[in-house]
Amino acid sequence: MTKNIDVWSKLEDAIVRVDEDNFGDSMTNLMNRLFPICLSITGNGLRQALSILQENRDLQIQEVPTGYQALDWKVPREWNIRDAYIKDKTGERVIDFQKSNLHVVNYSIPFSGTMTLDELRPHLYTNPDQPDVIPCVNSYYEDRWGFCLSQNQLDGLSDGLYEVLVDSSLEEGSLSFADAIISGHSDREILFSTYMGSPSQANDNLSGIVLTAFLYDVLSECKLRYNYRFIFVPETIGALVYLSKYGDHFKDYMHAGYVVTCVGDDGPYTYKRSINGNSIVDKVAEHCLKYVGRDEDVKIIDFFPTGSDETQFCSPGFNLPVGSLMRSMYKTFPEFHTSLDNMDFVSSEGIANSLKAYLRVIQVHEMNRVYVNLSPNGEPHLSSRGLYPTIGAGKLLPEAVERIRYLLAYSDGHRDLVDIANVAGRPAWEFGPEIEALVKVGLLSANAC
Amino acid sequence: MTKNIDVWSKLEDAIVRVDEDNFGDSMTNLMNRLFPICLSITGNGLRQALSILQENRDLQIQEVPTGYQALDWKVPREWNIRDAYIKDKTGERVIDFQKSNLHVVNYSIPFSGTMTLDELRPHLYTNPDQPDVIPCVNSYYEDRWGFCLSQNQLDGLSDGLYEVLVDSSLEEGSLSFADAIISGHSDREILFSTYMGSPSQANDNLSGIVLTAFLYDVLSECKLRYNYRFIFVPETIGALVYLSKYGDHFKDYMHAGYVVTCVGDDGPYTYKRSINGNSIVDKVAEHCLKYVGRDEDVKIIDFFPTGSDETQFCSPGFNLPVGSLMRSMYKTFPEFHTSLDNMDFVSSEGIANSLKAYLRVIQVHEMNRVYVNLSPNGEPHLSSRGLYPTIGAGKLLPEAVERIRYLLAYSDGHRDLVDIANVAGRPAWEFGPEIEALVKVGLLSANAC
Amino acid sequence: MTKNIDVWSKLEDAIVRVDEDNFGDSMTNLMNRLFPICLSITGNGLRQALSILQENRDLQIQEVPTGYQALDWKVPREWNIRDAYIKDKTGERVIDFQKSNLHVVNYSIPFSGTMTLDELRPHLYTNPDQPDVIPCVNSYYEDRWGFCLSQNQLDGLSDGLYEVLVDSSLEEGSLSFADAIISGHSDREILFSTYMGSPSQANDNLSGIVLTAFLYDVLSECKLRYNYRFIFVPETIGALVYLSKYGDHFKDYMHAGYVVTCVGDDGPYTYKRSINGNSIVDKVAEHCLKYVGRDEDVKIIDFFPTGSDETQFCSPGFNLPVGSLMRSMYKTFPEFHTSLDNMDFVSSEGIANSLKAYLRVIQVHEMNRVYVNLSPNGEPHLSSRGLYPTIGAGKLLPEAVERIRYLLAYSDGHRDLVDIANVAGRPAWEFGPEIEALVKVGLLSANAC
Repeated sequence: MTKNIDVWSKLEDAIVRVDEDNFGDSMTNLMNRLFPICLSITGNGLRQALSILQENRDLQIQEVPTGYQALDWKVPREWNIRDAYIKDKTGERVIDFQKSNLHVVNYSIPFSGTMTLDELRPHLYTNPDQPDVIPCVNSYYEDRWGFCLSQNQLDGLSDGLYEVLVDSSLEEGSLSFADAIISGHSDREILFSTYMGSPSQANDNLSGIVLTAFLYDVLSECKLRYNYRFIFVPETIGALVYLSKYGDHFKDYMHAGYVVTCVGDDGPYTYKRSINGNSIVDKVAEHCLKYVGRDEDVKIIDFFPTGSDETQFCSPGFNLPVGSLMRSMYKTFPEFHTSLDNMDFVSSEGIANSLKAYLRVIQVHEMNRVYVNLSPNGEPHLSSRGLYPTIGAGKLLPEAVERIRYLLAYSDGHRDLVDIANVAGRPAWEFGPEIEALVKVGLLSANAC
Repeated sequence: MTKNIDVWSKLEDAIVRVDEDNFGDSMTNLMNRLFPICLSITGNGLRQALSILQENRDLQIQEVPTGYQALDWKVPREWNIRDAYIKDKTGERVIDFQKSNLHVVNYSIPFSGTMTLDELRPHLYTNPDQPDVIPCVNSYYEDRWGFCLSQNQLDGLSDGLYEVLVDSSLEEGSLSFADAIISGHSDREILFSTYMGSPSQANDNLSGIVLTAFLYDVLSECKLRYNYRFIFVPETIGALVYLSKYGDHFKDYMHAGYVVTCVGDDGPYTYKRSINGNSIVDKVAEHCLKYVGRDEDVKIIDFFPTGSDETQFCSPGFNLPVGSLMRSMYKTFPEFHTSLDNMDFVSSEGIANSLKAYLRVIQVHEMNRVYVNLSPNGEPHLSSRGLYPTIGAGKLLPEAVERIRYLLAYSDGHRDLVDIANVAGRPAWEFGPEIEALVKVGLLSANAC
Repeated sequence: MTKNIDVWSKLEDAIVRVDEDNFGDSMTNLMNRLFPICLSITGNGLRQALSILQENRDLQIQEVPTGYQALDWKVPREWNIRDAYIKDKTGERVIDFQKSNLHVVNYSIPFSGTMTLDELRPHLYTNPDQPDVIPCVNSYYEDRWGFCLSQNQLDGLSDGLYEVLVDSSLEEGSLSFADAIISGHSDREILFSTYMGSPSQANDNLSGIVLTAFLYDVLSECKLRYNYRFIFVPETIGALVYLSKYGDHFKDYMHAGYVVTCVGDDGPYTYKRSINGNSIVDKVAEHCLKYVGRDEDVKIIDFFPTGSDETQFCSPGFNLPVGSLMRSMYKTFPEFHTSLDNMDFVSSEGIANSLKAYLRVIQVHEMNRVYVNLSPNGEPHLSSRGLYPTIGAGKLLPEAVERIRYLLAYSDGHRDLVDIANVAGRPAWEFGPEIEALVKVGLLSANAC
């Protein structure tokens, strides 16, 4: 029993370590290493990033070949790129892939040729609303080549001939992804899924990738109640590949899951609910954000099917309890999918706080049970057990006694800890010491793991 | 299957026709023809009105005799009236039924005599609060004679003898009502019930009578999913007669029902819920009014038992899913049951918009199903089916793609179209083309009719 | 049947008597007699108070011995006190139990000795925030002696020796409590539980004790539907003793219960819900307070486990439907547990109004049933039964007809009277005459008692 009860303090320690060991800077350093890589949903950039993540971690990297049937989808050809540019008459690279991965439409087919600006225009992508930024564009599922540039760059191009090169390849190959598992006492598991795909995008989603890796680091040192699964997958197609392999396993064993994305900035927290809207993932995340984000304008939003990989996990055939805990949500901040989603947009403090928020969520999942009051007829006599002050005077009871009385009154075999914490208006993790004390004196039991 | 899916476009066409064919003016013309008739709950006025409604419609007129047991009620004697007046000493008709049907208490027994003003007073009805108007009064279930006049008219009467005539008859006869049915593919039916009874009242309820007739006209040209039943009944007693004959049929087959009344003015929409408050009638009507009445202060009100015929349909023994979609509700506008509820109070535009609102309600009932995603494991690959743009760039997806993704994500075998439209925050009818497209490519099926 | 229906008028009469017979002054007189007694959870003060309550009432006084096992608790030794003081050098009683019962910590062990002010200080209790008041302190479950005084008194004490006497005894004895029962037609019962313990506290809880006694007086003259049980118990330990004897009976027979406390002031009503939050006690009390406290800022608050004896009744092993109807709630008013909770803090008008509120709650419990419309198909014909005006004119129906129509429309075998009254937006007790009328003409039946 006690092995199940001490999860509270293990996570309490872990949360303290985030600040003590300065995980914020370490996470920023790792994002800085990953930022220059030209990530895509397949290819060597993806392999390189996964292998950096693997350096200090027991991460399993897998590959599935082009044409692999991932549920209703097929894994596309593998894309790699070496160079790309648009040169003007003087031979100057006016658009240069070497300066930014974003300059090439991701998954561009190889091309070389000379053409006028007007012939080139259909291949050029800008954001006219944000004339200074390079947009981030891809064309995974139709053969195309193209360049992305700022509207200002485009407006500065003069007529005349341009020499164009896209030195890429699109060939039979494979799609890479990785996972890692930490075993717990139970056969139920909690999933953290993060995605890769867009190159040089700090918040969406190097932040999610790096936070997930560090979550693994922290939890790998605790023996906890649940199994924890961490997956690093190319967006959409990678999640579908993973579901094609592990979807049935998830249906049997998943207790909760979160898509980890957009966790590096300093904006207020956003929690996007699972499709059912009242799963245990939602109950725990919403409870935690009441206290973790208490001075902020936390946003709790309902599921919608036009987000990220939660759409796959929550699709009607799987219907898994998967939500997403973010800071500023994708598509809602102006830096999203542009050259402005760079390392200036994220911060060590922001991602460290996000990591602590995730650890609170894990702590509450670990602590949450239907505890049972073993002396349920009337209140047990607390002072004879050293749990109550012997002098009755003031109006206020010590907070610990309040928590004990809430635990005893509501541990009726139906309400779980989060229910009780919600009734008491206090965070669930504050009840850790009192749960331990009550279990110790035999007034409370926990249901089976 | 497609015969079930094309209901969307049939109703879309019907709604367009309301404006194109200028139904507003046609409905006003019909109200103008009916306005002068001295309607009551029995008698020749009622017969004449029903026969005008029957002119271009396959309307079945039925009669039940005086004494017919309509559940707990009995059909009263038939009332007819030829003339009525109060003449002063000079022989002038100071109150003259020929000038307004409202001047005689409806169902007045025959009377002739000469009396003083003081003797006359107990037989005179006014609205002191609205001194210019003639009130609309009836006495169906107790023998009485009386005249209605404005308070100002009453105040202008001098003492002296008056000659009074009520040339009416109250005899064994019958009560008339009418219905019409349009057959659909299913054996489930949708009822539109409208009532007659008060003479020369434009909004309450010539507007409902005429809108119901035109609803019949529009739908009789479409082969739809549901059967549609239109009934024209004297208020309360007629509804009870109809229920005595068809109540058991309704219990078995009624999918939804609406009492059509007070639909001719330009006020904001009012929807009065069925007694259960969460029937399919309520779900559909409330969904539609979010969009149909979006610039207005739409009123959604709970059932109450002191309204019109919905009280009969919703009585505990029947408990049918019947609501009422109105503009300004009876009893809430000052013109109600007075000489001011005349043709100036209603408008062609008002009643045409009400007709379109009713057609939207019908369209949503017709479209509403539990659709099932046939490729439920992860999102289906849309671009290979021509349902998704192949270039991924901006933050906004085309609205059609958004609708497709909502349909696929939520078509889980439990949620119906209105649920999905509510989650998406869009009107259900906008999903018509995407439902058709998804059914066509085999990604969506509809449950049995 | 009629014996079940006439409960409405019996309680209506009882409510009228509260004012007519000036119960407010009688209750104040009884509080004035009880106020000087040094109440505790055991002892002669408690016996004296119970015997005063017994004077005109069929109240059963019981005792259980020291050491009696009351569920998880044991009855403590019996405490009695004769005198107590702190004398200064001059022999003056600077703190004198004879002046206020509050000056001695309740359950102080006997002590006599001479000591310096500094030696005395650990035994002195004040409220520094309220420097003028004597706090009310007890130490039931640990051996201690002490005095309570105002901060100002303490600040006025000079150094030097003090002579201290606590002439108390703490010996094997017994704990006293009392109950009374009024039998009704049914075997279901309604509990009113009030508690004793703190001496010379007017609102908490002489008011509750006295109101409960008068509730007994009023109801003992009516033969009602439910059994009524009134219990007067020492706080917590007395409730546990009672539950140890009658807890199983309560599980089988309790229909509703209320802890009666803090009912003597003029503050707005507070209703504290039972732990389930939607028991019949809550439904009835919340309904009544909508109308009884209509001009006030009524507070409806959820259960919390740090209040009074409801914590025992609602503990998981019993989980009884027990709420608490109060004026200003304990712990929320500054006079609470101080010398300011005296007879100036309560009023005859306040406690009389509280008594009427409790009688309304009882009236609604008595009237509340699932009535069944015996003519459920369509509305029954009311005018032939003399229940409807025969002239149909104005917009407003007489209120009695409105109530009849609500009763008929919603008496569907599921909704009870409180549900119907809530839908109608009127207090349940207003429906009494119409229920009687409808039952009389055979249109309504009541389910079994």
